[in-house]
Amino acid sequence: MSDKLLFTPGPLTTSITIKEAMLRDLGSRDSEFIEKVNFIRNSLLQVAGVSKEAGYESIIIQGSGTFGIESVISSCIPSGGHLLILINGVYGERIAEMAKIHQIQHTCLRFFEDEVPDLELIQKTLSENREISHVATIHCETTTGIINPIEEIGQICAKYQKKYIVDAMSSFGAYNIDFARCNIDFLISSSNKCIEGVPGFSFVIAKKSSLLSCENQAKTLSLDLFAQWKGLENDGQFRFTPPTHSLLAFAQALKELEEEGGVEGRASRYKKNYTLLSEGMKKLGFSEYLGEKNRGYIITCFRYPNHPSFDFKTFYSALSQKGFVIYPGKLSKVACFRIGNIGRIQLNDIQNLLSHISAL
Amino acid sequence: MSDKLLFTPGPLTTSITIKEAMLRDLGSRDSEFIEKVNFIRNSLLQVAGVSKEAGYESIIIQGSGTFGIESVISSCIPSGGHLLILINGVYGERIAEMAKIHQIQHTCLRFFEDEVPDLELIQKTLSENREISHVATIHCETTTGIINPIEEIGQICAKYQKKYIVDAMSSFGAYNIDFARCNIDFLISSSNKCIEGVPGFSFVIAKKSSLLSCENQAKTLSLDLFAQWKGLENDGQFRFTPPTHSLLAFAQALKELEEEGGVEGRASRYKKNYTLLSEGMKKLGFSEYLGEKNRGYIITCFRYPNHPSFDFKTFYSALSQKGFVIYPGKLSKVACFRIGNIGRIQLNDIQNLLSHISAL
Repeated sequence: MSDKLLFTPGPLTTSITIKEAMLRDLGSRDSEFIEKVNFIRNSLLQVAGVSKEAGYESIIIQGSGTFGIESVISSCIPSGGHLLILINGVYGERIAEMAKIHQIQHTCLRFFEDEVPDLELIQKTLSENREISHVATIHCETTTGIINPIEEIGQICAKYQKKYIVDAMSSFGAYNIDFARCNIDFLISSSNKCIEGVPGFSFVIAKKSSLLSCENQAKTLSLDLFAQWKGLENDGQFRFTPPTHSLLAFAQALKELEEEGGVEGRASRYKKNYTLLSEGMKKLGFSEYLGEKNRGYIITCFRYPNHPSFDFKTFYSALSQKGFVIYPGKLSKVACFRIGNIGRIQLNDIQNLLSHISAL
Repeated sequence: MSDKLLFTPGPLTTSITIKEAMLRDLGSRDSEFIEKVNFIRNSLLQVAGVSKEAGYESIIIQGSGTFGIESVISSCIPSGGHLLILINGVYGERIAEMAKIHQIQHTCLRFFEDEVPDLELIQKTLSENREISHVATIHCETTTGIINPIEEIGQICAKYQKKYIVDAMSSFGAYNIDFARCNIDFLISSSNKCIEGVPGFSFVIAKKSSLLSCENQAKTLSLDLFAQWKGLENDGQFRFTPPTHSLLAFAQALKELEEEGGVEGRASRYKKNYTLLSEGMKKLGFSEYLGEKNRGYIITCFRYPNHPSFDFKTFYSALSQKGFVIYPGKLSKVACFRIGNIGRIQLNDIQNLLSHISAL
C-alpha cells in the first residue's frame, strides 16, 4: 500500500528506511538506547553548526513542537523578566498566548502577515523599554511561509543585550543558521520537520550560559528545560519516558540528512522543489500570497483563484483522492491554501502534483 | 536482528504487527488519520467499560505519561481548590511535586512503600479538612508494583463529594476498573503500558461533567486538558502535531488487545507470567519486597539477595547481554530490583529469563 504524499508542514512523507528504524523495541534505560540519544544530541549540535566546546547544548522535549516552545518560554524568563514577541502569523500569536497563560510580562509587536518585522521599530522598542529581557521571533512563519530576518533581529538583540529565542520549527535543517552571528540563546525545532523524522518530540539548541540561568524557574514539571537537560547530562537518560521509536527514526533521519549533504544538500533539493512548484502553479494561474523578497522554500501560500466555482474542500478532496495531501490556509483575512516542499518529496512528485492540479 | 526482551514497566516489548503499523506517513489533518484517532478514542472508552452515553470522554495528550498526569493536575483544580495526595512511592511524590510547581494547595498523606493507604486516615482527613476538593492516588505504584485500593478510596471520595483522580498508568488495560463504583473523575494512563503500544502519548478518561468544569483554568497551553478535548471534539484533529506513528501503532495495539480477549484476556496472561516469575524467583532464593496481600501482576520488586558478591550492575549487564532487560529499583531505603510481567512477553520468555538468572 502506498501512502498519499504529504505536501504539508509536517508530519511529512519520510523515507521507508526512517520508518523501518522503528521496528525495534529498545529499553529506554538500556545502553543501546542511551547511545542513540547521545548520537542524536551530538548530531543536532553538528547540524546547528555549533558544539559543546563552543558553549552550546541540545535538549530533547517529549511532545510536539509547541511543547518545545512552551518549555523554553515557561523555563527561561525569570520573574521580573519581560518578553518582546515579534508577530506576523499564527505561531507568533501562539507564543503570546503562552506568555499570557504563564503570566509573563510581555509586549507584542504585530506586523502584517506578508511583511517581515520592522527592524527600526524593534530597535526603537528595545531602546525605549529597558525592562525587556527577552525577544522571541519565528524564523519561517508557517502561516505564510515567510522567512523572517533572524540574523538582523539577533544583532539588535546583541546590541541591547537581550536574550534571543528563535522558533525555527519549520526551517531548522533546511536553512543555514549561524548561531553566533544570530546571537541565538534558544532555538526550537521538532522531529517531524526538515530533519524528516516522525513526530514525537521537539528539541532545543541553547547557549549553555543562558540555559544554566533557567535552573529552578520553570513553571511546569514536564516542560522544565533545565531539569530535562540536567537529566540527560547526568546519565544520558530522560527524566520521563521518551518516545523511543520516534527517536530511533530520528537517528536514522540524521544519517540520511548527512548522506544528502547536510543542510546545504537538503536545502538544494527543497529549493528545486519550490522553484518547480512556484513556476508550475504560476502557469496554472495561481498567485503566491507573499511578495517575492519574503518567500522561502519550505511552504508556499497560494491565494484562492478568482474563479467563482473554486471550492477549497472540493479541490483538497480531489487531490487527496489522487494521493496528494495539501494544506489549508490559516491567514486572518485572505483566503489561501498552502503546499509544502519539504519531506521526502522529489521533483517528479511536484511534477505529478502539478499535473493533477492542472487536470482538475 | 532480534531485540532484547524488555522486563520493564515500559517502553515494553511489543508485537511486530504493532510496530509495522508505523510504516506509514499519514497527514495529521487528513480524513484517514482523523478516523484512526476517532477509533482510538472510542476504543479507550470501551476498554474502560464506559461510554459517551454514560457521560465519559477520552482525551489524548502528546508526551509521556507524566505529561498526562500534569495535564490533569494543572487543568482540573480550580483556584481555591485543594488536592489530597495519597503517596506510597515515587509516582505519588511526583504528583506532589506538580502540585507544588503549579502552586496548588495540597496535603500529602504518606504511607510506607509496602503498605496501601490507610482508609480510616483518608476518611478522617476528608472529614476534618473540608477545604479538600480533589483526591489523587496511584493504582499500581510502579515503585514497588503495589496495588492500591482505588475502589475503596473512591467510595470515600464519593461520600465526601471529592473529585477523584486515579493514576492508572501501569494498570489500565490489565486490571478491570469499574469507573462508576470507583467514582473516578479523571483516570490517566499511557500508550506504552498494558495496551502494549509504543511511547508517544498519554490519555485521560474523564467524567464529562468534571471535564467541563476545567474550561479556562489550565496553567499551561500544551497540557490544557479541556482545550485538548474541545479541539478533538470540534473536528477530530489535535490542536498541536500528534505523534501520528505512535497513534497508528496504538490503533493496532487496541485491536490486538481485543483479540486477546480484552482486559480479562490480557490480565490472564500477565497473571500467569507473574505466577511463573514469582515461583521461579522464590526457588532461586529471591524474596519479593511486598507482602502477599499487596502484590500485583504488573511489575515485581525483588530484594537484593543476601549474598556479599551480589552486584546489581553486574547482574543487570549479564542478563542484558543474554537479551533480557530488567529494571533497577527505586525504593527510598531498601535495595531492590524490578522485573516486569507486561508487554508481549509469554511464559516461555519468563522461563528463559529464569533459566538465565539461575545460570548466573
